[in-house]
Amino acid sequence: MAMRSHYCGLVTDAQLGETVSLCGWVNRRRDHGGVIFIDLRDREGYVQVVCDPDRADMFAVAEGVRNEYCVQVKGLVRARPAGTVNDNLKSGKIEVLCHELIVLNASVTPPFQIDDENLSETTRLTHRVLDLRRPYMQNNLMLRYRVSMEVRKFLDANGFVDIETPMLTKSTPEGARDYLVPSRVHDGHFFALPQSPQLFKQLLMVAGFDRYYQITKCFRDEDLRADRQPEFTQIDIETSFLGEEEIRDMFQGMITTVFKNTIGVDLGEFPVMTYQDAMHLYGSDKPDLRVNLQFTEVTDVMADVDFKVFSGAATMKNGRVVALRVPGGSVEGGGISRGEIDAYTEFVKIYGAKGLAYIRVNDLSKGRDGLQSPIVKNIHDTALNAVLERTGAQNGDLIFFGADKAKIVNDAIGALRLKVGLSEFGKKNGLFTAGWRPMWVVDFPMFEFDEEAQRYTATHHPFTAPKDGHEDWMVSAPEKCISKGYDMVLNGWEMGGGSVRIHRADVQQKVFDALKITPEEAQLKFGFLLDALQYGAPPHGGLAFGLDRIVTLMTGAESIRDVIAFPKTQRAQCLLTQAPSMVDEKQLRELHIKLRNADLVKAA
Amino acid sequence: MAMRSHYCGLVTDAQLGETVSLCGWVNRRRDHGGVIFIDLRDREGYVQVVCDPDRADMFAVAEGVRNEYCVQVKGLVRARPAGTVNDNLKSGKIEVLCHELIVLNASVTPPFQIDDENLSETTRLTHRVLDLRRPYMQNNLMLRYRVSMEVRKFLDANGFVDIETPMLTKSTPEGARDYLVPSRVHDGHFFALPQSPQLFKQLLMVAGFDRYYQITKCFRDEDLRADRQPEFTQIDIETSFLGEEEIRDMFQGMITTVFKNTIGVDLGEFPVMTYQDAMHLYGSDKPDLRVNLQFTEVTDVMADVDFKVFSGAATMKNGRVVALRVPGGSVEGGGISRGEIDAYTEFVKIYGAKGLAYIRVNDLSKGRDGLQSPIVKNIHDTALNAVLERTGAQNGDLIFFGADKAKIVNDAIGALRLKVGLSEFGKKNGLFTAGWRPMWVVDFPMFEFDEEAQRYTATHHPFTAPKDGHEDWMVSAPEKCISKGYDMVLNGWEMGGGSVRIHRADVQQKVFDALKITPEEAQLKFGFLLDALQYGAPPHGGLAFGLDRIVTLMTGAESIRDVIAFPKTQRAQCLLTQAPSMVDEKQLRELHIKLRNADLVKAA
Repeated sequence: MAMRSHYCGLVTDAQLGETVSLCGWVNRRRDHGGVIFIDLRDREGYVQVVCDPDRADMFAVAEGVRNEYCVQVKGLVRARPAGTVNDNLKSGKIEVLCHELIVLNASVTPPFQIDDENLSETTRLTHRVLDLRRPYMQNNLMLRYRVSMEVRKFLDANGFVDIETPMLTKSTPEGARDYLVPSRVHDGHFFALPQSPQLFKQLLMVAGFDRYYQITKCFRDEDLRADRQPEFTQIDIETSFLGEEEIRDMFQGMITTVFKNTIGVDLGEFPVMTYQDAMHLYGSDKPDLRVNLQFTEVTDVMADVDFKVFSGAATMKNGRVVALRVPGGSVEGGGISRGEIDAYTEFVKIYGAKGLAYIRVNDLSKGRDGLQSPIVKNIHDTALNAVLERTGAQNGDLIFFGADKAKIVNDAIGALRLKVGLSEFGKKNGLFTAGWRPMWVVDFPMFEFDEEAQRYTATHHPFTAPKDGHEDWMVSAPEKCISKGYDMVLNGWEMGGGSVRIHRADVQQKVFDALKITPEEAQLKFGFLLDALQYGAPPHGGLAFGLDRIVTLMTGAESIRDVIAFPKTQRAQCLLTQAPSMVDEKQLRELHIKLRNADLVKAA
Repeated sequence: MAMRSHYCGLVTDAQLGETVSLCGWVNRRRDHGGVIFIDLRDREGYVQVVCDPDRADMFAVAEGVRNEYCVQVKGLVRARPAGTVNDNLKSGKIEVLCHELIVLNASVTPPFQIDDENLSETTRLTHRVLDLRRPYMQNNLMLRYRVSMEVRKFLDANGFVDIETPMLTKSTPEGARDYLVPSRVHDGHFFALPQSPQLFKQLLMVAGFDRYYQITKCFRDEDLRADRQPEFTQIDIETSFLGEEEIRDMFQGMITTVFKNTIGVDLGEFPVMTYQDAMHLYGSDKPDLRVNLQFTEVTDVMADVDFKVFSGAATMKNGRVVALRVPGGSVEGGGISRGEIDAYTEFVKIYGAKGLAYIRVNDLSKGRDGLQSPIVKNIHDTALNAVLERTGAQNGDLIFFGADKAKIVNDAIGALRLKVGLSEFGKKNGLFTAGWRPMWVVDFPMFEFDEEAQRYTATHHPFTAPKDGHEDWMVSAPEKCISKGYDMVLNGWEMGGGSVRIHRADVQQKVFDALKITPEEAQLKFGFLLDALQYGAPPHGGLAFGLDRIVTLMTGAESIRDVIAFPKTQRAQCLLTQAPSMVDEKQLRELHIKLRNADLVKAA
């Protein structure tokens, strides 16, 4: 006979009067009036088990069980006594009167209560197996599964085929650092773990598979941030014979379907915004549209003001001056205080800003006298009027300014925008609207100029196609080239991105030229792609979504580590298994490598 | 407007009279009576396109296209003229009268015809993108996808949850060699790529996820054979609270469903055979039941025969003497010739046999005179009668013998059994029955004695549970312990295998004791598992299937390389991307390693 007839969490009044067999873990044991109550837990939830002393053998077992014992319970489903119904549980209307209690495995005392919500990250990752027993983590990983399964169903229905690409592949030191794998068979040679299956998926299009996908691990050996892991999971997609808009439409449909079918959220319309507009209005290519604040461009009117910070920024190469109007920010009693402005001033310095100029708009009818500001006396009328008009300033507003190189302004005022919007003040004053705000950002520039290296780099990657006609500018005026790239953004997070790819070898060569990649280099690194493009490569494009990020957003978790079963720490370590670890000298010898620091070799 | 209205291969008479838009590759172009015929190919098949000279612009384009050009065709679907219908194609009743022909991308002349079936492995792997355009490879990979999707559907319906486990994990030098990944952050430390997610899936059971699966890459740095790749794909499964038979039943159901739904094959019943019977009858733990030949044990009667090869084998430690009766093998004119016997004698030497004794059963009524054999004079009557009786020998049979250490006998005569069964003679004489012969092999011994290392090793892996009661023998009599392990075998291939696992820390410790793994070693290598088992680990078990093998079997391909998009060669190289490759000195320095052979460092 099967050990289990039902999951604990799914026993309901539909089973009233039935004898059930349950398996699970003792979440809590309470003695109450001579009766023992066990909250039994499995992945589907909790059920209350009642152990009556009139069954002496069973009761003796019940007296011995402790938290986290794994037990089997056979018993009768009955209604809970009036007044003890728990509406928070699916099983809250019933309880199981225990007939037989079998300890499947005892447990030593756990280092923490499973329902403790105040555990440190280190404790959680060290005792990950117990941490994973918590309903929070169970739910996160179950949701992650449902998301990936919904993705598969959608793609299957649309003719996409999951094709596996190699994990042991070739190192192409572009962009991020590769994880390397020494070859035993080929002395001095290394495989690299893939940063993405980009080239392989393009090759599959050239091979005629038409529609490809894969939910696969990618690897980047970068210094870790809160939303990064050495290995992360990508929903990787490529299609032939679809244009930019068709691709966007299809995958907007996919994400919409997935949100609907997993967490019941209707994402609604996805506005499409150009990269230029996004930078212009939000200083970011992944604006959080839940924050109801926008930049106002005032660079053009600041060139000749006396305030040197503004005029300097307005006239320098790549300089920018913007205003950020905060409605109600100067309303007496309810606005942003002087102390808060000081704190924001410190905050923007993190992003390289040297200060934070502002104007309090107290009373527009009083002209300059109605404005309170340390800088306004050094701004001439034309500029001041432009600021007030363009921002649409009203009495009671606070206007912040950013003036510096555009990158600093965008980063600093972009971050300030979010900070103000998400502040207590912002939430109270309608500057933040909770919900889901998806969007597309499109028309990325093909190239960015790397000031340090004094050369152009690819904004997306070097296989991104230019807009029709723009290929002619690639060498003569790279900064003018717009690509067929697109990013899907949700609440300020980049969920995914991609592009139409170059399918002609001659256009690909032009990109390499613009990037100053020599034909020899190109042949060495990407020769197999260039070769493939010669044999009737089809028009194709695609995108990749970050599965970890999507699920993190859905759950509202603070870190992607909360949606990964066995994540690494920010120091790229697994606290559970203690990986990475030292290895035997013999292993290194077989791989033809040795440590630079010979002291670290493990004793045999 | 969409570039494509239909896949080429799926246009049928349902579209008669419709204007369609197709995208694909020129498979062949034929000029016939002033008209150009193009066989257009996409992943779904072929369609015939007819280009009439009366549309001059289009015709000029058609004259220019060559094989493997990627083109778009707009045209009218019409019935093929009588007598030109091609029943081998889905689109064989129709053709598309071309109105507009657009070259999407030209192609240089491919190094081979796409439909050439006589390409070398090297050519195919070097030009893999073109090789993948062949319908054979397209079909193989599409089938592979359908198999994995059917697996997912089955597991989803049965409550299994796909949970990802780490690719960067800990080296545990047991069994096969690990692929290592040097850590940049931790000097002298290495990650290992997983040989299987075995420990993680057990941890997920301890964490209460109840039913886990993953279709995931595993890695073994072993010398390659025809059916091995450095990275291979495992359908990895684990469940809690199910016993050995329940697990087998469930996954027999899964494989049966998958075969039915993908290639329409009904696998029928799966006989369950003990490991002991399999070795006894077939000398193999993965017998190919399509071959209708069995071993006959005669060790017991050979101890005192004059023929030293037999008596020696019968009396040595771990020796074995078996007979293999080949019905009809001595029938005049249609049997196995002397030359063939000589060839088989050479064949068994590959497996370590020193020779191949045999008896031709010409006429049983004549007693010894009716037997033709170089050895029979040195076999006494008791032994000879036992051979004839136990094999059920009939006139016209040929009986082969194996006598040596059991391992050599099993390997050599096991291989001979297949060789004879699959020979022309075997097929003609009913010794081979084509079809699908699945089975379970169960009751594996817990341990095997490694003569070389003079210690016991785990037959499956050290986490396999012993049969109930057998745990007491683990230290006193390890050879008697039978495990709860099981393998699924199909036509002589191991498709998958697994076991009920040990869920109690004390039992796990006994296994480590039997394997002479010290507590310190065990703690260092598997401490996290031993630790987890202490916290109420549930009874659990599972198995893993080799996806590459399943699909190879289904397609009848000669190598698993034919069901993998981008495989490695037997020298563990990717001929397409030239991985592995040399890397920059800077990369090695960051990883704190250097090459032993300094000459191989790549110039900066």
